[in-house]
Amino acid sequence: MNPTMPSSSAIPDASSQPSGATAAPLSVNALSERLVARLVGDAARLGVALTRTDDGTVLADAGIDAPGSVAAGVLIARICMGGLGHVAVRTNFDAHPLWPSMIDVRTSSPVLACLGSQYAGWSLSATKEQTGGKKFFSLGSGPARALAVKEPLFAELGYKDAHERGVLVLEVDRLPPQVVIDKVLRDCGLAPDRLTLVMTPTHSVAGTVQVVARVVEVALHKTHVLGVPLDEVVEAGGSAPLPPPAPDGIQAMGRTNDAILYGGRVHLTVKHDAAAQQLAAELPASNSRDYGRPFADIFTSFNYDFYQIDPALFAPAEVWVSSLESGATYHGGALNSALLHEQWDGQP
Amino acid sequence: MNPTMPSSSAIPDASSQPSGATAAPLSVNALSERLVARLVGDAARLGVALTRTDDGTVLADAGIDAPGSVAAGVLIARICMGGLGHVAVRTNFDAHPLWPSMIDVRTSSPVLACLGSQYAGWSLSATKEQTGGKKFFSLGSGPARALAVKEPLFAELGYKDAHERGVLVLEVDRLPPQVVIDKVLRDCGLAPDRLTLVMTPTHSVAGTVQVVARVVEVALHKTHVLGVPLDEVVEAGGSAPLPPPAPDGIQAMGRTNDAILYGGRVHLTVKHDAAAQQLAAELPASNSRDYGRPFADIFTSFNYDFYQIDPALFAPAEVWVSSLESGATYHGGALNSALLHEQWDGQP
Amino acid sequence: MNPTMPSSSAIPDASSQPSGATAAPLSVNALSERLVARLVGDAARLGVALTRTDDGTVLADAGIDAPGSVAAGVLIARICMGGLGHVAVRTNFDAHPLWPSMIDVRTSSPVLACLGSQYAGWSLSATKEQTGGKKFFSLGSGPARALAVKEPLFAELGYKDAHERGVLVLEVDRLPPQVVIDKVLRDCGLAPDRLTLVMTPTHSVAGTVQVVARVVEVALHKTHVLGVPLDEVVEAGGSAPLPPPAPDGIQAMGRTNDAILYGGRVHLTVKHDAAAQQLAAELPASNSRDYGRPFADIFTSFNYDFYQIDPALFAPAEVWVSSLESGATYHGGALNSALLHEQWDGQP
Repeated sequence: MNPTMPSSSAIPDASSQPSGATAAPLSVNALSERLVARLVGDAARLGVALTRTDDGTVLADAGIDAPGSVAAGVLIARICMGGLGHVAVRTNFDAHPLWPSMIDVRTSSPVLACLGSQYAGWSLSATKEQTGGKKFFSLGSGPARALAVKEPLFAELGYKDAHERGVLVLEVDRLPPQVVIDKVLRDCGLAPDRLTLVMTPTHSVAGTVQVVARVVEVALHKTHVLGVPLDEVVEAGGSAPLPPPAPDGIQAMGRTNDAILYGGRVHLTVKHDAAAQQLAAELPASNSRDYGRPFADIFTSFNYDFYQIDPALFAPAEVWVSSLESGATYHGGALNSALLHEQWDGQP
Repeated sequence: MNPTMPSSSAIPDASSQPSGATAAPLSVNALSERLVARLVGDAARLGVALTRTDDGTVLADAGIDAPGSVAAGVLIARICMGGLGHVAVRTNFDAHPLWPSMIDVRTSSPVLACLGSQYAGWSLSATKEQTGGKKFFSLGSGPARALAVKEPLFAELGYKDAHERGVLVLEVDRLPPQVVIDKVLRDCGLAPDRLTLVMTPTHSVAGTVQVVARVVEVALHKTHVLGVPLDEVVEAGGSAPLPPPAPDGIQAMGRTNDAILYGGRVHLTVKHDAAAQQLAAELPASNSRDYGRPFADIFTSFNYDFYQIDPALFAPAEVWVSSLESGATYHGGALNSALLHEQWDGQP
Repeated sequence: MNPTMPSSSAIPDASSQPSGATAAPLSVNALSERLVARLVGDAARLGVALTRTDDGTVLADAGIDAPGSVAAGVLIARICMGGLGHVAVRTNFDAHPLWPSMIDVRTSSPVLACLGSQYAGWSLSATKEQTGGKKFFSLGSGPARALAVKEPLFAELGYKDAHERGVLVLEVDRLPPQVVIDKVLRDCGLAPDRLTLVMTPTHSVAGTVQVVARVVEVALHKTHVLGVPLDEVVEAGGSAPLPPPAPDGIQAMGRTNDAILYGGRVHLTVKHDAAAQQLAAELPASNSRDYGRPFADIFTSFNYDFYQIDPALFAPAEVWVSSLESGATYHGGALNSALLHEQWDGQP
């Protein structure tokens, strides 16, 4: 048998149901396994420090004590998308660029890649008593969420992954306590030495990359919030400027949000015209009551209460939405270059 | 022997003729085999449905009953170019973009990749009597054309591929009848289970991608029509906007043509200044009598008679042509953003 | 053991020092070995001619007698960066592009990739007596420099590679004499059949690509000249327009320099604000006394004495420098589109 072609038996003959449509669902943990192996194998080049717990769980530090890198952040973003997305940092060739370095994200499996995997939706916490030290909190993102399916979102998606290895990304500035690792292992049904946990602090280079690379995911999430059926969205791509991290935690969080809210551009393809029109009108961040100020200012003005912020704010600045029904493309929102430069430019 | 290096015997010593120049000609079917294996192996992820005929020929449906995807279209475009081209869909970072999603194509083997493989030049048809149903017609494109060499173009190219596997792309909205498959097998000299046929309807997502990815091929073909010797062209790259497919067949065909005629930009490198000057002046679509209206309107005005359309219309909107002789670069044509937006934009 | 994951023993447990930080230094020759194998294996497709000396050293001609290609130049540029950089030629989507084809370069290991490997700093010469013909001179660039460490720069970098294979790139228009090959072998401590030499003439297509792909390296080198500590620079990316080669030697050299001096854009990330501010102000080529004229004119006006040219000229046109300390980004310089078009555009 030619090794580059699947065996005959893998493809049904013409009289039976074609494959593809009837194939087993895609496994985001299986599809990202190759990328996790690269993160581990190229750790030195990527500025990532690896340790193992006594049980064998791999802890990949991409910005706590290790420096991390843009290259690490890009790889982690691809892992977060369950191996179903392209992520790259590219130079902006524009004669007068909004920003010199841009993140470009694309997926032909937007719902599974962004909501089934990349979305930071798995709440993981431990009390002081449990950790024997400081309390711990993180929103886990990436493929292992789909093994645990602890979020109601998975019922809506009708998706549960099954794979003997898993990976989870935590936007934290210290290693997770063993009690949290044990919870992840238990909920995912994984042997300890089959789990990789990747830590990307908000104020790190890799952390900034992996959050700004959520520009398309943010659009998918707001699509969901707006009540548009998720199976409407069949293709997605987008871009956002990549700033350096801000050293301060609140500013760092604000900055990655600003990159998307004021600098993000997304192009979605949906099935029907009604959804396309609705999304072009309602998706852009400019629809939000809180639009127009830097995110850190908004967050501060609400006394650091995340849940006081208008959920409609979490969206790309500019959207293009194409409809397969009509072939028409609708456009809404706009980039806000002035706000970004006011925040990000140094005064020499 | 180190497995990453060819054996000593593969490289001649300095006293003999160097390799490369004297090597066996490149096989577009061999070079694309790895990509075909990926199309088959990743079919579920790409939205491609696979069947096999009783004889074992693989039929890859990338948009008839299966949904297909942009990712499938990009891979099929790379297959069409015989593994000799780069094709990618990227977000446009321009502050005021012509279009948000762009196709970028590049090859250092432009004549072989575009005319020896990608060009849709192999006429395949079957009568009602032969099919036992509707008559069938398609212009086959991609590597297997070079196995069959049924077109006069191959004599001009002086190229005939020899490989035990082959792949052909058909821009059709139903599976080809067995009589056509048998003709392809016979003309290519392939065993039935060594042929893959890829179907990309004009009005499908993957079909739109693989046609718009012909922006460089269209430039090469018109170069040929203009009588410029093909061995003039040594490098080529280009871009075109990627719209969604139009649901209507005529509009879908019109739209992919408009993407190239009014939104395509190509940069060629040729050997001599005379060719560079001629191509910069004569290549752009704006030289055509029929330039200025949407392609679907032109086609309709000629009563759907393709051969009434001025052949000079089939060309990119804007060309840059560099000459190795002088080092000068000549520029001609221009993008027509207004025409594209008038056609493609929805009215909310 | 799962082949896609390193063995448990490769990753220390949590009680010991994490890996990554303590790992053996990266080997630019090991990291580029896979790319060299591709250059050799795909030589026919890339337009590269291969020969071996009697001792087995591989000579890869990418533009002397062989035509070479853009694809060869991109691969050679990646080899030059020791496998630590991304290099691509992409179409410029800008509505009114500075230039249609752009080189995009990015690395998360800027000092090692650019100065430890890519910089053309190893002076290799042979007298008429030694060659038995014309005297030979070349500045070797690429990974093998770090095996030989003949330049004072390596002491500053604190870097010396150790690997049993090596590759060196020579910007020359003839094959190097055996006496030079023997010197390289001796200084690198390599067996003759473990060395690959790649020749890219200045006036060749591949040579133009690999020189313009130095846009980030030029920024790193001037950073060094300005006295900014090299460990300040943690991330780098940039772009420059890719013109065709000029047929004349002086013009060809001038043209690749102009692409960087007047068309190069670089985005650096450094550790501290002081370095960021200094680099944004002092790095751009416009700081030079000699800025403003085509490089070939400057060179000619100094009677072809390279060392009379103001060293401050060798720098990108436009720089953006981000500081991890403050999170601020400083901007300096500007692209000079007019000068490039005056030099590069043909008059039809």
